[in-house]
Amino acid sequence: MPHKHPMEARKHVKSWHGRLTAQADSATEALLASLDVDAALWRYDIAGSLAHAQMLREEGLLTAADLAKIRRGLRAMEKSIAAGRLAMPVELEDIHMVIEAELVRRVGDAGRKLHTGRSRNDQIALDLRLWARDAADDLTAGIVTLQKAFIALAKARGDVIFPTYTHLQRAWPVVLGHALLAYVEMLQRDAERLADARKRINVCPLGAGAVAGTTLPIDRARTAELLGFPQFSRNSIDAVSDRDFLAELCFACSMLAVHLSRWAEDWIIYSSGEFGLLELHDAFCTSSSMMPQKKNADTLELIRGKSAGCIAQLTGLLTLIKALPLAYNRDLQDDKRFAFEAVGMMKQVLAVAPGIVRTVTIKPPDLADGYLDATALAEYLVGKGVPFRTAHGIVGKIVAQAERQDLALADLPIETLQKHSKKIGTDVYRHLGAKNVVKRYRPDGAGGAKQLALQLRHWKRLLG
Amino acid sequence: MPHKHPMEARKHVKSWHGRLTAQADSATEALLASLDVDAALWRYDIAGSLAHAQMLREEGLLTAADLAKIRRGLRAMEKSIAAGRLAMPVELEDIHMVIEAELVRRVGDAGRKLHTGRSRNDQIALDLRLWARDAADDLTAGIVTLQKAFIALAKARGDVIFPTYTHLQRAWPVVLGHALLAYVEMLQRDAERLADARKRINVCPLGAGAVAGTTLPIDRARTAELLGFPQFSRNSIDAVSDRDFLAELCFACSMLAVHLSRWAEDWIIYSSGEFGLLELHDAFCTSSSMMPQKKNADTLELIRGKSAGCIAQLTGLLTLIKALPLAYNRDLQDDKRFAFEAVGMMKQVLAVAPGIVRTVTIKPPDLADGYLDATALAEYLVGKGVPFRTAHGIVGKIVAQAERQDLALADLPIETLQKHSKKIGTDVYRHLGAKNVVKRYRPDGAGGAKQLALQLRHWKRLLG
Amino acid sequence: MPHKHPMEARKHVKSWHGRLTAQADSATEALLASLDVDAALWRYDIAGSLAHAQMLREEGLLTAADLAKIRRGLRAMEKSIAAGRLAMPVELEDIHMVIEAELVRRVGDAGRKLHTGRSRNDQIALDLRLWARDAADDLTAGIVTLQKAFIALAKARGDVIFPTYTHLQRAWPVVLGHALLAYVEMLQRDAERLADARKRINVCPLGAGAVAGTTLPIDRARTAELLGFPQFSRNSIDAVSDRDFLAELCFACSMLAVHLSRWAEDWIIYSSGEFGLLELHDAFCTSSSMMPQKKNADTLELIRGKSAGCIAQLTGLLTLIKALPLAYNRDLQDDKRFAFEAVGMMKQVLAVAPGIVRTVTIKPPDLADGYLDATALAEYLVGKGVPFRTAHGIVGKIVAQAERQDLALADLPIETLQKHSKKIGTDVYRHLGAKNVVKRYRPDGAGGAKQLALQLRHWKRLLG
Amino acid sequence: MPHKHPMEARKHVKSWHGRLTAQADSATEALLASLDVDAALWRYDIAGSLAHAQMLREEGLLTAADLAKIRRGLRAMEKSIAAGRLAMPVELEDIHMVIEAELVRRVGDAGRKLHTGRSRNDQIALDLRLWARDAADDLTAGIVTLQKAFIALAKARGDVIFPTYTHLQRAWPVVLGHALLAYVEMLQRDAERLADARKRINVCPLGAGAVAGTTLPIDRARTAELLGFPQFSRNSIDAVSDRDFLAELCFACSMLAVHLSRWAEDWIIYSSGEFGLLELHDAFCTSSSMMPQKKNADTLELIRGKSAGCIAQLTGLLTLIKALPLAYNRDLQDDKRFAFEAVGMMKQVLAVAPGIVRTVTIKPPDLADGYLDATALAEYLVGKGVPFRTAHGIVGKIVAQAERQDLALADLPIETLQKHSKKIGTDVYRHLGAKNVVKRYRPDGAGGAKQLALQLRHWKRLLG
Repeated sequence: MPHKHPMEARKHVKSWHGRLTAQADSATEALLASLDVDAALWRYDIAGSLAHAQMLREEGLLTAADLAKIRRGLRAMEKSIAAGRLAMPVELEDIHMVIEAELVRRVGDAGRKLHTGRSRNDQIALDLRLWARDAADDLTAGIVTLQKAFIALAKARGDVIFPTYTHLQRAWPVVLGHALLAYVEMLQRDAERLADARKRINVCPLGAGAVAGTTLPIDRARTAELLGFPQFSRNSIDAVSDRDFLAELCFACSMLAVHLSRWAEDWIIYSSGEFGLLELHDAFCTSSSMMPQKKNADTLELIRGKSAGCIAQLTGLLTLIKALPLAYNRDLQDDKRFAFEAVGMMKQVLAVAPGIVRTVTIKPPDLADGYLDATALAEYLVGKGVPFRTAHGIVGKIVAQAERQDLALADLPIETLQKHSKKIGTDVYRHLGAKNVVKRYRPDGAGGAKQLALQLRHWKRLLG
Repeated sequence: MPHKHPMEARKHVKSWHGRLTAQADSATEALLASLDVDAALWRYDIAGSLAHAQMLREEGLLTAADLAKIRRGLRAMEKSIAAGRLAMPVELEDIHMVIEAELVRRVGDAGRKLHTGRSRNDQIALDLRLWARDAADDLTAGIVTLQKAFIALAKARGDVIFPTYTHLQRAWPVVLGHALLAYVEMLQRDAERLADARKRINVCPLGAGAVAGTTLPIDRARTAELLGFPQFSRNSIDAVSDRDFLAELCFACSMLAVHLSRWAEDWIIYSSGEFGLLELHDAFCTSSSMMPQKKNADTLELIRGKSAGCIAQLTGLLTLIKALPLAYNRDLQDDKRFAFEAVGMMKQVLAVAPGIVRTVTIKPPDLADGYLDATALAEYLVGKGVPFRTAHGIVGKIVAQAERQDLALADLPIETLQKHSKKIGTDVYRHLGAKNVVKRYRPDGAGGAKQLALQLRHWKRLLG
Repeated sequence: MPHKHPMEARKHVKSWHGRLTAQADSATEALLASLDVDAALWRYDIAGSLAHAQMLREEGLLTAADLAKIRRGLRAMEKSIAAGRLAMPVELEDIHMVIEAELVRRVGDAGRKLHTGRSRNDQIALDLRLWARDAADDLTAGIVTLQKAFIALAKARGDVIFPTYTHLQRAWPVVLGHALLAYVEMLQRDAERLADARKRINVCPLGAGAVAGTTLPIDRARTAELLGFPQFSRNSIDAVSDRDFLAELCFACSMLAVHLSRWAEDWIIYSSGEFGLLELHDAFCTSSSMMPQKKNADTLELIRGKSAGCIAQLTGLLTLIKALPLAYNRDLQDDKRFAFEAVGMMKQVLAVAPGIVRTVTIKPPDLADGYLDATALAEYLVGKGVPFRTAHGIVGKIVAQAERQDLALADLPIETLQKHSKKIGTDVYRHLGAKNVVKRYRPDGAGGAKQLALQLRHWKRLLG
Repeated sequence: MPHKHPMEARKHVKSWHGRLTAQADSATEALLASLDVDAALWRYDIAGSLAHAQMLREEGLLTAADLAKIRRGLRAMEKSIAAGRLAMPVELEDIHMVIEAELVRRVGDAGRKLHTGRSRNDQIALDLRLWARDAADDLTAGIVTLQKAFIALAKARGDVIFPTYTHLQRAWPVVLGHALLAYVEMLQRDAERLADARKRINVCPLGAGAVAGTTLPIDRARTAELLGFPQFSRNSIDAVSDRDFLAELCFACSMLAVHLSRWAEDWIIYSSGEFGLLELHDAFCTSSSMMPQKKNADTLELIRGKSAGCIAQLTGLLTLIKALPLAYNRDLQDDKRFAFEAVGMMKQVLAVAPGIVRTVTIKPPDLADGYLDATALAEYLVGKGVPFRTAHGIVGKIVAQAERQDLALADLPIETLQKHSKKIGTDVYRHLGAKNVVKRYRPDGAGGAKQLALQLRHWKRLLG
């Protein structure tokens, strides 16, 4: 008996078999299938169908018996899928068709009515928005947890005097808490961006159908309400074309990832033998398969690297959408690959980062090096009436001399200092040295203990 | 007389000449200089300095005479620069130093006091935020203008029945206004994103100094107020490191650019000889240097291409910041190249796009092709009690038959239709044909005239 | 009985347990693990270990018995893994450690000697190069198959006269074969780029150890030879840091993907109802879940979209490596995600694309529209001594007039033509009309049948 | 007198004024114009026109007198443009039209014949290829200069014993020359990639016309020969669509930029106060406007940042081309922005980098820290018959103990060592310490003096 041509095999499984006669071969089926990715949406797909079915019943498009069957069928399937017991044949292409086909198998004609007034185009838009809403919430929770870890460390060890760096050269001294709260600021903007994105995520597209709505009397306000959306989309064409909300989520992830990469870079450098400003807990390090002495900050390096992954997903998603004619095109099938990957990476990273912060050991830094007090000396001269730009030049020369003698500024005798400026008095020594500098910070937001206390109060109020 | 080594030339011009002894050669100076780009910030730099000087005076760090000189000097320089009469020597590196050096040249020691309690690190952050605030406002205004052009066209020609496309194949018919308002929706989200970004732009970094503030008694609230900022930054390290606001602006531009690329793609295709749905005004087309018959939609193609430019700037800026240790690093000098380019492209495009919309000619489409009424026929069967999935299959076969006979659905005799389903009655002809379909749309947001009227009312309320 | 702290669990499984005392929790283990991705390298990892072991034996670093055990063990494991019967516990992190740990479990101390003179740093570099070499070969084979499909179509239907487009407006007529061979040219460059990349892939890093080689007497030339590498790396630091070969592969994939996206865009447009230049086989189309009339070019849309995926991977990989200090850093663990994804997408697409080409139906185009002969008319005038720029202007006006009258150029009476230029004689009609134009192409590489024959001969010679 | 509508102004200046009647307003003209960018191509444009004109004469399409006029005109214009004395009115859009219009103005009808058998589509492709060929050569020369600077330093200071790092933690000791030559390897691959790209750049597109060639008897081999191209393009459609060569150039620049970013990162870290491994010459550093003590590695930071710029250009160019239908579309006008920017950045950076290398001061590192000899100790144990994995575990414990006692391995008494393994004898001290380790490297490519000598010999042979 002859084999069927592969293109003729597996007929009639597709929702649209009426129109087309040949079937795809397996490579084509693999390309067309998004099941490997969109299966993750199954909970959202079922939730959407339950709301849609209830509305259809309320509008008289389903009988009470139909609705009961659909509900029973979908709820049973929830259990099957959760238990990994529902087959997902790749020729069904996507999670929507897997679920509809199984529903029809289980409950017959009632299942065939579920897609009334609906298209996969608005259905996938709905599933993605439900997913994205949860993703934004999960990421926000993860961000807050990480912020709290930094804040707790800022409280516990905040008063250690620590160098800051610009250009990786020592700049001014600050209290450590101030340095740690810089990361909390970054994270706060990430949380705010997610909150802003969430507003635009939280719009119900259901009822837009394939592109233009439907001639059937459906109630869009009702499905939106059942699914917890405060509003539904105003224009059906836009509703099925719009993937801004995923791009915005990818951007929020990218910015977050970039922030985390800066923190990771800082702490990788700080935990080098040469900087020695902190030591990571062994649980977040690995060693080498060849070099037995190594203790490497691998988790931080992986976190740093994830920024590249998120930027890539963002670039990819925007490029995917670029120049796509309205409305839906199949290119958009890959939107999920980008968005799921970006969100997944950030969730993974946020699950690890707080532990790194909570278990780090701060090592008391040597503050004698780096002339951390040089600008304070210039500002001392300003207090004595020297124009700042002139004072800056004077101190530049004092530093150059101190460097040649390998001395700290506070170790220079008053005569030496006075050779550079007559305005310098012996009170200058109360301005020199990192400790003195940190005490003298004046404006809000500067690197002293007083300013730290204010910041901690703010975060207490905001994050509890 | 021997030439000086180039590295020894041009001494003493830099703000920081006290510390370093050698000078850069010309290639190095070119690399270090950002003047070619940041000169564009001069108005913001002067505005910031005026506010800073006034605050310094109020805090007693300048005399009244100093302030008067600084003001006079800066205001005179505003005129010089606006007139293109201020030299900008590349060895001064950036606009801040050009302005400070010239001020010192003009007013002497008072000028040397201007940088009191300030660093280029917080100064450039300030300039960029002032620029970005204006950029967001300009872009928003441009978006609104474009939205209004679409809305005006939707009012004027909105009732023309027009095909929609998914996968570039005809889908459902709609009133043209509905298709046009899809672009307005996209643009509205762009405007909202800019408004959200603006909140995070609108924070005054001045007073953060180089990285840790200052030991001098400056009043950050006052400078913020003078410059129209509702708040100032909470953490000095973050304040000089943060470029989120530029990345967010680049993202908003990218999303906008992607939207415009979709519109451009649509209209390029629609204006092809084959689609023939619209014709662009000659003013927005060019011809060919070789082929005399050509009328090409070049402006739309350029608009489409700018999406690549914006995505590139966004990718570049995020990559620039990736893994940068805190706080300021010179890599950030190039932040402006990315942000200025993205914003500049979008301003340029928004200056042209409304004209394209205002002058377009809509050509009455032939709606007989493409079976735009097929789904309506399936929904007709749903009304007769056929489950949608079954109805979909029936209509698929009807379409296949009509296609073989090269007939529209409405041209099929009732007997042919009834061979496929006994449920079809002669009332079906009131459901077939694009015009009938458009009349029957039911839910809000669908493609009919009633729904268009609702949308237009919304935009009237929102945009006036 | 109390549970152990998760950080204390699963001790002693890591290769490097001597140095560090705490263990990672499960989120950290998940972050550290690359097994989900690098398990795909198992064949290459085992092949590399077999070669390494043989060399170690030849250098006296293993006994004959050790080698025999290692070989037996690794070969048995090949079967286990191929059959999916080897557990891959995530706490072992990567495929190297899974294999080494299992080998030790199976053959004891001989297994503990396998890592002599080797590090995971050179081992993963080796595995990736072996993989990349195969990837380049597989992609090249796929490209050739696709080229041949285009060439076969160019032979079969090459003489159909077809419009070309610039700016999506009709330009000149050509024989269809010429239009098809443009894609073959693009693909040829892709194949050449892969061949160039392969030279730089094909270098053996083994022996570079962790970063500086080893103090043990290993023979790098021997392992290179055993693994089919014509050369080994010259510098150990570079050998473990270098991921250029993956970036180059990603670039080759991106360029290929962009080429395919242009072809896909062409054929999506050509298969629209409006253009109607070709029809795709049903096997490569899908329909709609809602709209029963639809036949959508989904496979081409997915192919088009994969360009975004490849560009994203390239961007991501370059960004990952950006600013990484030498030599190995754990960020590089994610190199595989980018490279595997890009190569995987292109292999998938190349498995489908030839079928689309082989089964397409070309539809005879209507060539009366679009003034495809306008430039030929200008060149006719050049033949009569009119300067080209002048002739271009004359024909521009003739076209404008013909358009107003809705006539083709060949339909204009001679009097009308002569009103525009006295140089036009009745012989002009042998120059007008797409067929006449195509016959008159002169230089090599132009769009006529003669030029097509030359191109086909070239490809015959090159690809067989 | 009424003003003309801006769209009606400036008529008749365009090459194609015959066809279209309205004119663009100034915003539209600015969008359409590429003169701000493509003016840089003027030399190439004139060179191409000279070759084209000569061929036209040889084919009888120009008279000798025409050719003489065209030559005289173009050569005079070369001088005008070089002297900045040729107006470039934006309404002429591009450099091709500026030159042709001026030529016509200067020499009349002969100028009107220059565009015979040519289109801007093949003309710009030609100009870009001529430019790209020079760009590849310039970049290659810059790379070689930088390689030589590293090699000279490797010769001069190559024997200093230097730490290597993996994960920014100390790994093995090497001779400094070995560490420096790692950068030379990277750069060599960059040069090779440019050479490969050059093959694909070096193809003459002239004669492809707008898209399909021409009906006039032009000689493509002749123009190719006159312009130094070894071959001309085989397919006219591909010839005007292809921008691979620019993308490949952008990729080569990106990879180079990423390499330079890694070097910059290394040296920024090495020149920090904490690492103190090297000191940059003042000429390549700047200080701070506020902090007088700073000496920052600004040039290296800018070099590091340029990697983001290049990656952005590459991403942008690929995204620009993505899904463009064949053949030419105006989107491609922006190809130059990406390519010029990427090449320009790399040329700028390569002009500075060699000076940084030539003037750097190497500071003798303290090698006592970091257990650089730990793996050598494990390999010592291998020599005593201990399986490597076992030896690795033993040394891990020895290092942990040494760390607790804050001792180097060589400072541990033999009894301590022997407690960990009986195999350790007193000969172990000849294996411990960085100096001993470096002496013992065995395989080619490892970090010792012997291997360095081999590498230097190789580079001497290759680069002279």
